[in-house]
Amino acid sequence: MKTYKEMSKEELVSLKASLENEFAEAKSKGLKLDMSRGKQTTAQLDMTMDIMDVFDSDSVLRTEDGTDCRNYGLMDGIPEAKKLLGDIMGVPAENVIVYGNSSLSVMYDAISHSMTHGVMGSTPWCKLDKVKFLCPSPGYDRHFKVTEYFGIEMITIPMTPTGPDMDLVEKYVNEDESVKGIWCVPKYSNPQGISYSDETVRRFAHLKPAAEDFRIYWDNAYAVHHLYEDKQDEILEILSECEKAGNPDLVLEFCSTSKISFAGGGIAGMAASLANLASIKEGVTVRTIGYDKVNQLRHVRYFKDLNGVLAHMKKHAEIIRPKFEAVLTVLEREIGGLGIGEWTKPVGGYFISFDAMEGCAKEIVAKCKEAGVILTGAGATFPYGKDPKDSNIRIAPTFPTPEEMAAATDLFVLCVKLVSVNKLLGNM
Amino acid sequence: MKTYKEMSKEELVSLKASLENEFAEAKSKGLKLDMSRGKQTTAQLDMTMDIMDVFDSDSVLRTEDGTDCRNYGLMDGIPEAKKLLGDIMGVPAENVIVYGNSSLSVMYDAISHSMTHGVMGSTPWCKLDKVKFLCPSPGYDRHFKVTEYFGIEMITIPMTPTGPDMDLVEKYVNEDESVKGIWCVPKYSNPQGISYSDETVRRFAHLKPAAEDFRIYWDNAYAVHHLYEDKQDEILEILSECEKAGNPDLVLEFCSTSKISFAGGGIAGMAASLANLASIKEGVTVRTIGYDKVNQLRHVRYFKDLNGVLAHMKKHAEIIRPKFEAVLTVLEREIGGLGIGEWTKPVGGYFISFDAMEGCAKEIVAKCKEAGVILTGAGATFPYGKDPKDSNIRIAPTFPTPEEMAAATDLFVLCVKLVSVNKLLGNM
Repeated sequence: MKTYKEMSKEELVSLKASLENEFAEAKSKGLKLDMSRGKQTTAQLDMTMDIMDVFDSDSVLRTEDGTDCRNYGLMDGIPEAKKLLGDIMGVPAENVIVYGNSSLSVMYDAISHSMTHGVMGSTPWCKLDKVKFLCPSPGYDRHFKVTEYFGIEMITIPMTPTGPDMDLVEKYVNEDESVKGIWCVPKYSNPQGISYSDETVRRFAHLKPAAEDFRIYWDNAYAVHHLYEDKQDEILEILSECEKAGNPDLVLEFCSTSKISFAGGGIAGMAASLANLASIKEGVTVRTIGYDKVNQLRHVRYFKDLNGVLAHMKKHAEIIRPKFEAVLTVLEREIGGLGIGEWTKPVGGYFISFDAMEGCAKEIVAKCKEAGVILTGAGATFPYGKDPKDSNIRIAPTFPTPEEMAAATDLFVLCVKLVSVNKLLGNM
Repeated sequence: MKTYKEMSKEELVSLKASLENEFAEAKSKGLKLDMSRGKQTTAQLDMTMDIMDVFDSDSVLRTEDGTDCRNYGLMDGIPEAKKLLGDIMGVPAENVIVYGNSSLSVMYDAISHSMTHGVMGSTPWCKLDKVKFLCPSPGYDRHFKVTEYFGIEMITIPMTPTGPDMDLVEKYVNEDESVKGIWCVPKYSNPQGISYSDETVRRFAHLKPAAEDFRIYWDNAYAVHHLYEDKQDEILEILSECEKAGNPDLVLEFCSTSKISFAGGGIAGMAASLANLASIKEGVTVRTIGYDKVNQLRHVRYFKDLNGVLAHMKKHAEIIRPKFEAVLTVLEREIGGLGIGEWTKPVGGYFISFDAMEGCAKEIVAKCKEAGVILTGAGATFPYGKDPKDSNIRIAPTFPTPEEMAAATDLFVLCVKLVSVNKLLGNM
């Protein structure tokens, strides 16, 4: 099979004509599909509905230590919810604070609190001339939005198959005092589905930051979100690695049940050293007399323990695995070997990452939209929404049905082909 | 009856001896009562338990406009919850954002956001040399803690029977550009149970702030928290008063269901002009993809509408009214006419405010603690925890039973008498 780059101008022109016909036909079908956001599909949400049976009017809403969850108090969460989220993150319950439903909020608040109050007593970031964050990219657009919103300068760090480029990370962190943080999705990363290697995690734990208030912002968004039973990534637990490396306060971890129970009704948590937590709790104590403990207890009663969560996640995998496979099948069949795109084949998480030929991503997304398929905006996976190569596209397969995903991917590969041909012709 | 001040030294010395005997006896009883915090008692919480029957695994968790509450989205709340909280505050649904369970968090976030991003585009407060807040006092200690935590200078404004001293408020707000806000609990104020007069509300609406980013922080904590059916305070609705006065953006309102449903499982909201909301939503959109909509829908399905809330609050009143009356009965019977204390007789809210003779509050609270009765720390109702007269004590009658409240108040008046006698003797 010839790659597109090996084709002559005549071959490309003829290919272009037939692709344009195909596109016109596809467009006339009036597709209306959304593969832009990583959200649960209705079948997943329905599968969790028995969490609504956990409590009725006869339930006793008390924690194991007797606290009435209905009333004020326990601003850092109920003990059994700390244990559950701690088990998901692989850390002891005493290192956990449980919050409301959104881990994004917990991260936002961590940044906001650092702006106004510093980190464990450091100078508030708003008093500094310059604050910078490292942003492994492609990465999670909402992480980048948070730092952008607070006027923090973002530095793109390339991703490798084993995690962020650690040579660069070490250089920036260990040499530049204005570098205060790095965003990480260490397991089944968004959007590539990459899990950090043991070496990567250890190099993180052994950082020697120039700034005392540098922290690793470690988002365990997909900690238990495997797609397969026989192919699962596991990563080293960073909090204890940091301790071992003599850097106990280096990391702040985050997680939520948004993609375990309900995004619109789950619980979220943070894990960190006791010294970090003590400082963070000073703010939490002023901010609230307690988060929603009833929902915390509901989650504990429903899942019981980590095994309960893992069993539940197997059912999620059964629902979404065919959608990933539908995408991968079409990609391989339609553009494998054509040299016009590369993509990841994750065994967990919520995304597939696609890299088109340079300078093609925006046009591919626009073409897809023209024919009724919504993708995450090109560039969204990079700081400031600007992909320097205009190459990366995030595919979120979970929400549509497998059939819809196949149809959407059919259109997607058609657009990839068409835009690539145009690009190659334009360069001739 | 002689007031204490009219007594001779001999009379006071003899009285002191007998009071000390009484105190020793009371202390030996080993009381263990807490009237320090305004929280629901178990009977109130139990009364709301049927909210747990609202949903089961067959429920359809969709809003009236079809949004699936279980998934991401609607970062500003579901339409029907906006309506419900709007009705409680007396404002249109379109002026409301619904958040998580704590209105204190909403207020904290409003201040925090102003620190980092200003108010509707104004200079972020963290970039200013000086930011001041007016604090009508006695007031709510947690309001004051929020401003203190952000390094905001607090200025005490005396309360009058019709609300804050508006001459002073107008002077500060209209003349000092560094005054950026005022904390208000306009109905059944914490701790006095005072409701602002129509004139007070109108004078608030007609303020001409020197600072463009001055806002009134209007905490509707007790909007529907009447104790009686035949004696109820109502206040003017401030948002529309501000509009009428040509000051549409002057106020930010807050409310929650913490003392309607569960503090540990309720919902909270903010109301403001559309211009204020647009600015605030910029931050909310970065902070979260949506608060707990399942719980928002649960509340709407349970209460249905404002009438449902009001009917529910009648049941609350039946539970807590006898406790207020137990306190008031003991106070009147034991120290009425003695000239050693004055107190409020609120018809709503969660507190009774007691003013001892100057310089006595701290000692009274300490004495009560010595004999097993916990009161809110003296001074807590003033900025920086410092009551300039050391006079005000907040009594929170809701949590103990009426019998316990009577016993606690018996001890309280004994301590008031004893400390007052000592004070008068010390001054001789």
